[in-house]
Amino acid sequence: MKLSELSTETGVSTASLKFYLRESLLAPGEPVTRTQSEYGTAHVERVRLIRALVESGGLSLAQVRRVIDALDSPTVPRHALLGVAQEALMDAERFDEDPEWTALAIAFVQQRGWRIEDGDILLPQLGAQLKALAETCDVGGRDTLERWADAAEIVAASDLDTLTEDDAQALRTAIVGTVLSDKVLQTLRRLAQQNRTAHLYEAALRADDAPGRGASDQ
Amino acid sequence: MKLSELSTETGVSTASLKFYLRESLLAPGEPVTRTQSEYGTAHVERVRLIRALVESGGLSLAQVRRVIDALDSPTVPRHALLGVAQEALMDAERFDEDPEWTALAIAFVQQRGWRIEDGDILLPQLGAQLKALAETCDVGGRDTLERWADAAEIVAASDLDTLTEDDAQALRTAIVGTVLSDKVLQTLRRLAQQNRTAHLYEAALRADDAPGRGASDQ
Repeated sequence: MKLSELSTETGVSTASLKFYLRESLLAPGEPVTRTQSEYGTAHVERVRLIRALVESGGLSLAQVRRVIDALDSPTVPRHALLGVAQEALMDAERFDEDPEWTALAIAFVQQRGWRIEDGDILLPQLGAQLKALAETCDVGGRDTLERWADAAEIVAASDLDTLTEDDAQALRTAIVGTVLSDKVLQTLRRLAQQNRTAHLYEAALRADDAPGRGASDQ
Repeated sequence: MKLSELSTETGVSTASLKFYLRESLLAPGEPVTRTQSEYGTAHVERVRLIRALVESGGLSLAQVRRVIDALDSPTVPRHALLGVAQEALMDAERFDEDPEWTALAIAFVQQRGWRIEDGDILLPQLGAQLKALAETCDVGGRDTLERWADAAEIVAASDLDTLTEDDAQALRTAIVGTVLSDKVLQTLRRLAQQNRTAHLYEAALRADDAPGRGASDQ
């Protein structure tokens, strides 16, 4: 298909497609004439992937490039899949490492019994995130952290099961699945908050309506 | 304190502070001379908040502005706290609503028994996210979605408990806690993946070392 047809097929403007080509995010098409190239289904798939990563995943172009590079690299052994995915998705944002908070993060995962390699970059990152939480809104105490870790274990178990089922495109699933489902999990968290708020608020209203109360609260 | 001292105290450059002042993210200081103003602890706190939202939370300036506006607004009733927080944090990114996937998202939360208001913007957003997942990597089937919802319920219960304990700064906790802890949850998910991968990989190695096998696999 022509570039204009690739645009129609994917819903991505030709200007954006030319940008992807210039930035080597998209492989060149098969030259047909001096000014025209032919694009195929692999191009359609790649453009849809870039679009999903940028629009649904909220990735920066630098992150998209790392994801694409990882996907185009030689086969990754199965046990390293999620590590490669994590590296590709690593926040470009710098964080200030705080040794005290890094130590706290390490102590937490150890006490939790998680097997994490020494020097894992995620440990100082977790420390910096917990520090920011504690300093700005006093959230993230031990109890809260335990409940978050419970939730993380449920999600991670599901992640690994997904990879075990899927063979052909494991790395792609690991990377794209993680970045897009981070967003799904955020949305589900907010919906679950609404559900719980609705229940709590109704319970409070019922308590206000109870005989002998209510009127004095108005 | 002077602007330069506010900079030292918060670790934010004077150029950035002047930008915050120009953009009205930060209230002007008390004028002392024609060219100098005096800043106080409220300024220190606000600058730290902006910094945490941008650096740790990864928010855009537009999102920071909505958060600040919400925080500066009159008291929000308790049952609306998380709703106001969610609105302030709503992704600026547009998504293409797909009626079929929106219906699927609605059916899911209904079957789950979650009480969500009709017309909640999060429902088409969830639909669009699930569509992107299904189209790019075939992830997010019914079983997976159920496990994610289990995890979301654990986190939401913790969120509501945190708000119930904290009274004075509930809205701030709701907003800042949500955006910063989204990042903590992402990090915990990746650490939990590593832990589970380590266990699975070791189990696979042990199976390879079992008598009568192993050697032929080398």
